[in-house]
Amino acid sequence: MRKLLVIGIGTGNPEHMTVQAINALNRADIVLVPRKGEEKEDLAELRREICRRFLTNEQTRLVEFELPVRDEAEPSYAKRVADWHQAIAATYRDLIAEHTGGDGTAAFLVWGDPSLYDSTLRILDRLQAMAGYDFEREVIPGITSIQALAASHGIALNTVGGAVQLTTGRNLSAGFPENADTAVVMLDGRTAFRALPGDDYTIYWGAYLGAEDEIAISGKLGDVADEIAEKREEARQRKGWIMDTYLLRRR
Amino acid sequence: MRKLLVIGIGTGNPEHMTVQAINALNRADIVLVPRKGEEKEDLAELRREICRRFLTNEQTRLVEFELPVRDEAEPSYAKRVADWHQAIAATYRDLIAEHTGGDGTAAFLVWGDPSLYDSTLRILDRLQAMAGYDFEREVIPGITSIQALAASHGIALNTVGGAVQLTTGRNLSAGFPENADTAVVMLDGRTAFRALPGDDYTIYWGAYLGAEDEIAISGKLGDVADEIAEKREEARQRKGWIMDTYLLRRR
Repeated sequence: MRKLLVIGIGTGNPEHMTVQAINALNRADIVLVPRKGEEKEDLAELRREICRRFLTNEQTRLVEFELPVRDEAEPSYAKRVADWHQAIAATYRDLIAEHTGGDGTAAFLVWGDPSLYDSTLRILDRLQAMAGYDFEREVIPGITSIQALAASHGIALNTVGGAVQLTTGRNLSAGFPENADTAVVMLDGRTAFRALPGDDYTIYWGAYLGAEDEIAISGKLGDVADEIAEKREEARQRKGWIMDTYLLRRR
Repeated sequence: MRKLLVIGIGTGNPEHMTVQAINALNRADIVLVPRKGEEKEDLAELRREICRRFLTNEQTRLVEFELPVRDEAEPSYAKRVADWHQAIAATYRDLIAEHTGGDGTAAFLVWGDPSLYDSTLRILDRLQAMAGYDFEREVIPGITSIQALAASHGIALNTVGGAVQLTTGRNLSAGFPENADTAVVMLDGRTAFRALPGDDYTIYWGAYLGAEDEIAISGKLGDVADEIAEKREEARQRKGWIMDTYLLRRR
């Protein structure tokens, strides 16, 4: 039976790799490295760097491939994403069939941790339904941008006994979660924090967390919201993409 | 100036150590290893094992010490914890002064990640106020039991675009968080999940996650709640302590 390794690689610092992840990488016959666009090119480079530093198995081959793109002409968001995931699953199916034998092992290097706001596990569910060959999968946890954010600011995520809501910019736009004193927001392309009352929250923000060009800003939301929005836009234009995360805490 | 390294070591599998954590460990002059009780003895052994495997700096010394205990006679919970943290901070102060010079480096090996339901950073705040010497601190993120739980069950924490509440058994007893479809519960010594309607949730439970004696059970809450409670009690009695975590998702 084939084996698929879903390996969390941390968030931009190759040294976020765990010993478990390095060992898993070296068990793979092939490592799939997607390539596409500016962001994907930086991420592809991080994956190559990780392989250069930590791959010692001379039998392991890197297989670079073009990731299918979303059909932005499709009006339904749900169908747009479903079609896209289906196309990626089909690409995986063909690459794995082409490059591994019936008991071969393929590795996916997932930004952060495979369990958090990542589609790889869902795409592998689709692959299971269409592959035409059997496989088992194994997940290796990785450092998330949430932990990198907390480490960078030197803070605890939770207050004593308090709850923490992990959420998205879209959810935050509907209001700060009522039954938590801390919210960690991912996938916020529209700076949803700007709509909250600036006197009521402290924000800890970070972009490119773990990487050399990491940016971190914290303070009373009302005092630093504009600065964050400006730095965020500046960085996004300079690099062509941005990956940021922030924590909000009630004051 | 002295330097304190707060290093996340993951959850029971020495291979959860990141390259960054291993490098930090090897920068330390001393590694503080607390010792106390059955649970602490197992955790102390994990820390020693990590040092045996990953410490290559021959100058680094392990300093084992007795962790102060809480005064259970103190009736106020808040004061009990505050006094205890203050006593630990004083112990750190003295050990660091005794075993490191004015520009020395001391490392704390924190179970999981220093940002999540851990007191080390708060105790270092107390240390800062009482140390009588300057220090800077650096936090190294680690794999949490939440990620180990998700990896073990091969699941994503979040549904598509959904929010995830990280919370405690005490908070869960007040009800499932309304604005999230997933809750991850830590620090639940009283199996608070048993009070929820068994048909409404799926549970993914794990104990000693990452370690060799890891236990993982999942299913419809009503189908597996009793089994989890039994296995949990059995394991707690066998080992003398238990560390478990679970995820609940609305069905």
